[in-house]
Amino acid sequence: MTDFRVGGRERSPSAGEAFLGRALKRIVRDGVSDLVAIEEPLEIRVDGEPVAVTMRTPGNDEELAAGFLFGEGLIDRAPELGPTRDLAANTIEVRGPLLRRPASRSFYATSSCGVCGKGALEEIAVQAPRAPDGPRVRRALLAVLPDRLTQPAFNRSGGVHATGLFDASGELLAVREDVGRHNAMDKVIGWALLAGRLPLRERMLCVSGRLSFELVQKAAVAGAPILVGVGAPSSLAVELAAAQGMTLAGFARRGRVNVYTDAGRVSGAPIA
Amino acid sequence: MTDFRVGGRERSPSAGEAFLGRALKRIVRDGVSDLVAIEEPLEIRVDGEPVAVTMRTPGNDEELAAGFLFGEGLIDRAPELGPTRDLAANTIEVRGPLLRRPASRSFYATSSCGVCGKGALEEIAVQAPRAPDGPRVRRALLAVLPDRLTQPAFNRSGGVHATGLFDASGELLAVREDVGRHNAMDKVIGWALLAGRLPLRERMLCVSGRLSFELVQKAAVAGAPILVGVGAPSSLAVELAAAQGMTLAGFARRGRVNVYTDAGRVSGAPIA
Repeated sequence: MTDFRVGGRERSPSAGEAFLGRALKRIVRDGVSDLVAIEEPLEIRVDGEPVAVTMRTPGNDEELAAGFLFGEGLIDRAPELGPTRDLAANTIEVRGPLLRRPASRSFYATSSCGVCGKGALEEIAVQAPRAPDGPRVRRALLAVLPDRLTQPAFNRSGGVHATGLFDASGELLAVREDVGRHNAMDKVIGWALLAGRLPLRERMLCVSGRLSFELVQKAAVAGAPILVGVGAPSSLAVELAAAQGMTLAGFARRGRVNVYTDAGRVSGAPIA
Repeated sequence: MTDFRVGGRERSPSAGEAFLGRALKRIVRDGVSDLVAIEEPLEIRVDGEPVAVTMRTPGNDEELAAGFLFGEGLIDRAPELGPTRDLAANTIEVRGPLLRRPASRSFYATSSCGVCGKGALEEIAVQAPRAPDGPRVRRALLAVLPDRLTQPAFNRSGGVHATGLFDASGELLAVREDVGRHNAMDKVIGWALLAGRLPLRERMLCVSGRLSFELVQKAAVAGAPILVGVGAPSSLAVELAAAQGMTLAGFARRGRVNVYTDAGRVSGAPIA
């Protein structure tokens, strides 16, 4: 991760060339050279104990581990990382102790989530504070946030999701890409955690895809009042955002956007 | 699940109206009525013991449970299901015993996968047979398979993925939709398992999104020689498909398609 200053403000708008080098793989298909996004497992260990395995795009693994553990309510401050003894082993070491024991499950869950909805909804009410008042923003600004996500790995491979962190004026503060959409958000929130920038009271998060329950949960734990997506929200995403007092906006594309919850932060009429 | 006959052949091209009624929820946003895809947890229990929790779109839960357990190598034939005592509890009961103990993990994995790549690659080589010879198909047919996926829930909500099962002539045999792309494939493979139609030796699978390692794994275990996606494959998806001898095709859209592995089954030159 390379932080750099633009206009006197710390920013990390993209993960940079070092990320691209690790994120993409050159292959041959149909007799032509092409690039695909790299997918590899990362095992997150705490004090030597495996806590999670996620299929991710390599790069910014420290942010991913920090953001993941924070989103699960297992840590509440920047963790001590390393030493990572063997990079090729795709493991990352985090120093404990954790705030609580990781949930124990007899098996892993596939797909987008491993949390049991009901239980998690109750749990999040404890873990995550209600969304802060946050900024008031124009609807037209929400609609164009996805256009401001710089996505170099996506542009070259078409194979990764992105999450961006924006200030209230719509300036991009950080963006991360990953084959897993949850990883992309974990990396951005992990970046903010490691940079001492949590909670995200005056910030907006924007994702390049659909809005699942789990993404709303991660945004809520990070204290973000506004979450925007290019795609559709699920029913549980809408319900959790409503319960948290978070502004959830979807289908942000072509100058339009749908606002599903807490439209009080949004000025400007819906574009019919 | 409603099977019905068309032209003398058993088919289940979509999950039907009963599914739509359970899959979509009416909400109000921006002062207008709209539909979102339902996302709810499903706990899969074997002999009363929780084995997995997945966030899914309700409907075809029996198929989902059967397909999931089959894809994990935990069962190799249609399981006995039920009794499900409490539908509202979002649980499904499966009668054991299982072929092996579910992998034990201290925590669940987020995002698209809970399997450790290296280990899983070794494991799949044992679990899944090498892909069968399968049919020879025209490249132009692969390119149009996504257009033949009937997606009623997507058309109304924009919030679900789809997986379709096709015969070698490109006729749609079954299609399932879900907020989780892996669930959609589990449902289709579960349908085939419950209907006594596995392995999928002469069949093609087609997914509405990107091609991850886990989707290739599920297709491989089901014995499918050809997997097509609308989106990009990951590096690990390409590697696993190559190792299995499976034809993996991506970016199937607008009459074009990229073939990444085992193009020997595909006739017709790449469209430049």
